[in-house]
Amino acid sequence: MKNDPVVAIAGVTGAVGAEFIATMDRRGFRVGQLRALASARSAGKTIDFRGQKVVIEELNDKSFEGVDIALFSAGGGIARKFAPIAVKAGAVVVDNSSAFRMDPNVPLVIPEINASRIREHKGIIANPNCAAITALVPLWPIHQRNRIKRLILSTYQAASGAGAAAMEELIESTRANLKGEAYPPKVMPHPYAFNLFNHNTAIDPETGYNDEETKVIKETRKIFEDDRIAVGVTCVRVPVLRAHCEAITFECENPITEDQVRAILSNAPGVKIVDDRTKNYFPMPIDASGQDDVMVGRIRKDLSDPSGHSISMFVAADQLLKGAALNAIQIAELVPQHAMA
Amino acid sequence: MKNDPVVAIAGVTGAVGAEFIATMDRRGFRVGQLRALASARSAGKTIDFRGQKVVIEELNDKSFEGVDIALFSAGGGIARKFAPIAVKAGAVVVDNSSAFRMDPNVPLVIPEINASRIREHKGIIANPNCAAITALVPLWPIHQRNRIKRLILSTYQAASGAGAAAMEELIESTRANLKGEAYPPKVMPHPYAFNLFNHNTAIDPETGYNDEETKVIKETRKIFEDDRIAVGVTCVRVPVLRAHCEAITFECENPITEDQVRAILSNAPGVKIVDDRTKNYFPMPIDASGQDDVMVGRIRKDLSDPSGHSISMFVAADQLLKGAALNAIQIAELVPQHAMA
Repeated sequence: MKNDPVVAIAGVTGAVGAEFIATMDRRGFRVGQLRALASARSAGKTIDFRGQKVVIEELNDKSFEGVDIALFSAGGGIARKFAPIAVKAGAVVVDNSSAFRMDPNVPLVIPEINASRIREHKGIIANPNCAAITALVPLWPIHQRNRIKRLILSTYQAASGAGAAAMEELIESTRANLKGEAYPPKVMPHPYAFNLFNHNTAIDPETGYNDEETKVIKETRKIFEDDRIAVGVTCVRVPVLRAHCEAITFECENPITEDQVRAILSNAPGVKIVDDRTKNYFPMPIDASGQDDVMVGRIRKDLSDPSGHSISMFVAADQLLKGAALNAIQIAELVPQHAMA
Repeated sequence: MKNDPVVAIAGVTGAVGAEFIATMDRRGFRVGQLRALASARSAGKTIDFRGQKVVIEELNDKSFEGVDIALFSAGGGIARKFAPIAVKAGAVVVDNSSAFRMDPNVPLVIPEINASRIREHKGIIANPNCAAITALVPLWPIHQRNRIKRLILSTYQAASGAGAAAMEELIESTRANLKGEAYPPKVMPHPYAFNLFNHNTAIDPETGYNDEETKVIKETRKIFEDDRIAVGVTCVRVPVLRAHCEAITFECENPITEDQVRAILSNAPGVKIVDDRTKNYFPMPIDASGQDDVMVGRIRKDLSDPSGHSISMFVAADQLLKGAALNAIQIAELVPQHAMA
């Protein structure tokens, strides 16, 4: 691959698209040429990239000619249609949607966990679900030392996970609520102002789990390469703009103490411990927003397991960064190193 | 006790105080005379009660002379000072604070669970913590049929639990945020607009649990009269006005199915099942606000326990009603029936 690759962004006008640009800038990601792709609606508009205006082009069958790296954040349907076209044109695709995540031929990568899988790609590398990334970055170094056999998660997920329109709906519906005005939901299934609700994905009528929860369960097993890890999860949308939080309880094969967890996490890549009991200062969405690390706090013995095998903690991470754009850019940075022989 | 008792409300100007008045009205609670008590700051103001103005008096040592029932929602310090004075004056006190809850001489009552304990009172009956009430009303009928041995809760708690000033802070800080203005937190320890944080009670430096969590653990054991039930809990304050939600996972002594849970809860007092997988409609704070019942939904197998002993569900209840004023009025209604011989 060239030192200064041609990079395409599919979905450049979305919430994650904007963070692709900002994250590449911030990390000094080398770009020979940027191709800004979006729907016909945005074609002809421009975005700013490193002091230059880049004209947005409509995503089509010819968009990927000459492209080295294609970053997709345009939903599963677009990815299913255009990622194979990009691969055929010679690009390596890093896709943020769920379309290819469980495909056995597609590496599902969190660089802090399984960067080495990148080299197995056949053109597409999948970026995991944001709620999965948020939990797994701090759990992985623990799991390596003392296998996690049971995991129970409750999420507090921000509007950003449903895109820029959902963030706008949270803001505008709250503004209307404060004025005593009605605001019929457009993007979300339920009123969002000062409210929370089950994650806005379809529910499996048999299991009762929503799609977000099913993703967390399946992706955890694939990323950890551990089919036996038992995961229970409740995904909830809360009226927060852009960082996800999660209350996590995990049970290990061997006894574990909070001091051991703290020692492991204090050296873990991508993790920042925020755990001040005296000041009542722990991970919060407003602090995690704009930050790269997963913040971890409230590390303590799970009192529901007297055997001493379980720990509870509370985490926060920027859904648009580590949950999406940052993780994808980290993958893209590693693609040349892990190029197939 | 007289048919039309003299009722005192200590803390009548607070968020719960207002709901005492509304709930008595709505339920036709018989009141011979109402004594409205608050701090000196509010003395001389009036409140409306059944078409009449009642002048607010400053709470003092003489406030309880001639009072039959005293409803306290004025914090632990006031309760510790004035509840014994009220009892000495001949009143039965129903206290909303945590001051007396763990006192072995004080019944801790959720009428749907342990109304019979009311008769053991020695003048004071304690109203449980709102997060505990919300979880325990639906868990009790399950626990009676198939003992719950392990319970893991994550809460999504509304501003109302911290009082009227906290609700105001959520509204005003959100209004400021939408205007791009700063709003230094006054009541809450952290910015509240579009944010969430660990519950605003002190953290035990040893265990890492906050006081709210410790209350839930201890009160569950006292109310269920089961010292072995193992409880792990994470209490989180979310930017919602007045109803608490909880993600609950419980493990029973014997195998249990979601159909069994649904059958039990469909006949449980104080419970309303809201569990529509097709419409993605489950318990939400805006629906629970102003309602008496604890709403229960997302009833499903806990996939982290392959043995089939565990169920997950999501609940919502009005913190000011079943979590506080309603439960206290329900207790007060039962006091005459359970008067000591």
